[in-house]
Amino acid sequence: MKLKKYRQNYEDFVIEGEKLVTEALLENVYPDLLIATADWLQANRRSIPEAVQVVETSMADIEKISSLSTPQPVLALMKKKEVSINTIDITQKWSLALDGISDPGNFGTILRTADWFGIDTVLCSNDCVDLYNPKVIQSTMGSIFRMSVCYFDLHDYLASCNLPKYAAVLDGEMLDNHIWPEKGVLVIGSESHGISSKVLATCNHAITIPSYGKSESLNAAIATGILLHDIKR
Amino acid sequence: MKLKKYRQNYEDFVIEGEKLVTEALLENVYPDLLIATADWLQANRRSIPEAVQVVETSMADIEKISSLSTPQPVLALMKKKEVSINTIDITQKWSLALDGISDPGNFGTILRTADWFGIDTVLCSNDCVDLYNPKVIQSTMGSIFRMSVCYFDLHDYLASCNLPKYAAVLDGEMLDNHIWPEKGVLVIGSESHGISSKVLATCNHAITIPSYGKSESLNAAIATGILLHDIKR
Repeated sequence: MKLKKYRQNYEDFVIEGEKLVTEALLENVYPDLLIATADWLQANRRSIPEAVQVVETSMADIEKISSLSTPQPVLALMKKKEVSINTIDITQKWSLALDGISDPGNFGTILRTADWFGIDTVLCSNDCVDLYNPKVIQSTMGSIFRMSVCYFDLHDYLASCNLPKYAAVLDGEMLDNHIWPEKGVLVIGSESHGISSKVLATCNHAITIPSYGKSESLNAAIATGILLHDIKR
Repeated sequence: MKLKKYRQNYEDFVIEGEKLVTEALLENVYPDLLIATADWLQANRRSIPEAVQVVETSMADIEKISSLSTPQPVLALMKKKEVSINTIDITQKWSLALDGISDPGNFGTILRTADWFGIDTVLCSNDCVDLYNPKVIQSTMGSIFRMSVCYFDLHDYLASCNLPKYAAVLDGEMLDNHIWPEKGVLVIGSESHGISSKVLATCNHAITIPSYGKSESLNAAIATGILLHDIKR
């Protein structure tokens, strides 16, 4: 199938639906190929740069290649963004580090939440889910085009990083009018195992969101949202 | 199939996995039927009350009836809890109202988050996803057994309720050292459409979580977590 050939040849990934395609174009991240129905193209012609290769097709054909339960009239092939450890600079801002987040919906929601709070760099351990997993892409709601996400040995990186590092844990200092520094790294661990002991050992602070009920833990994305809101407020 | 017969006859629902079964037993919510492997039963015999009917079976049989991608050695049939509008009293505490939350994972995560912050009553519009949807149950992580969740005409209920009602919206008063009252209702709307205009009209306050980036909105469960943390802090 043509779509698969493209994806293999050019290291592309697929985005589906008006929301993601519009966000990509708004961020000047241009698709290698845009596939849409005649109706969609007519309504959106002015927002598609001339350089973008466009294929007009039927809704029936889109339904054949879509991975969504409710296919949408537009999808696009995008080039993957290479982010290497050498191209990021986290020394002047707050960043997020994710240790072993494996659920694609959670991972995408974390990126979307980080974007809301102005975080643009996310450091991931190698066992986090792939950024280009379709469920991750969909749940970022477009934030994927505004963020630098890189995968590496998180322990080695954090061990050599001089910023304050805050670990979100279940048995740390209670978050209660905490005075946050102006820059640092917030470290979020996997839901089932938490932050790995090696990565935790690199952190200077362990912080806990107070509980008033009986549930054992908070979802990792919820904890990220609460902590980033507190850091930025 | 036996499982289906039970479910139809007794208005039961199925919970799967050690985490959910253990949480139910801890809350003294006893299954109508507990189905488990011999190994699991041997290891957990002491935590199963005598009144509970137990069926020992093989992992192969559990795999046949499980709806999980990774079946677990225990599942149980539970009776649905009837919560009517007349049995709840929200006048002395904070409660949560959900208007049109249709994503099961989101809905379950919202219940789990509410439980963390000590909220035990959740008011739902009739177009929210069903509480007993399997994905909802799994993502509550057991909080479902500690909460009263009821479905009704949310507009009528809120219109006749004299508590302060706070709507989470994208264009309201910025959340910034807000002084929250001691009791009230936090209203969260669907991600695609927000709070319906009818329900919004019943609210006394409209509040917004400040953004520092470019993403258009926050996930409904993340917004719930941030607001409940702020209310309870």
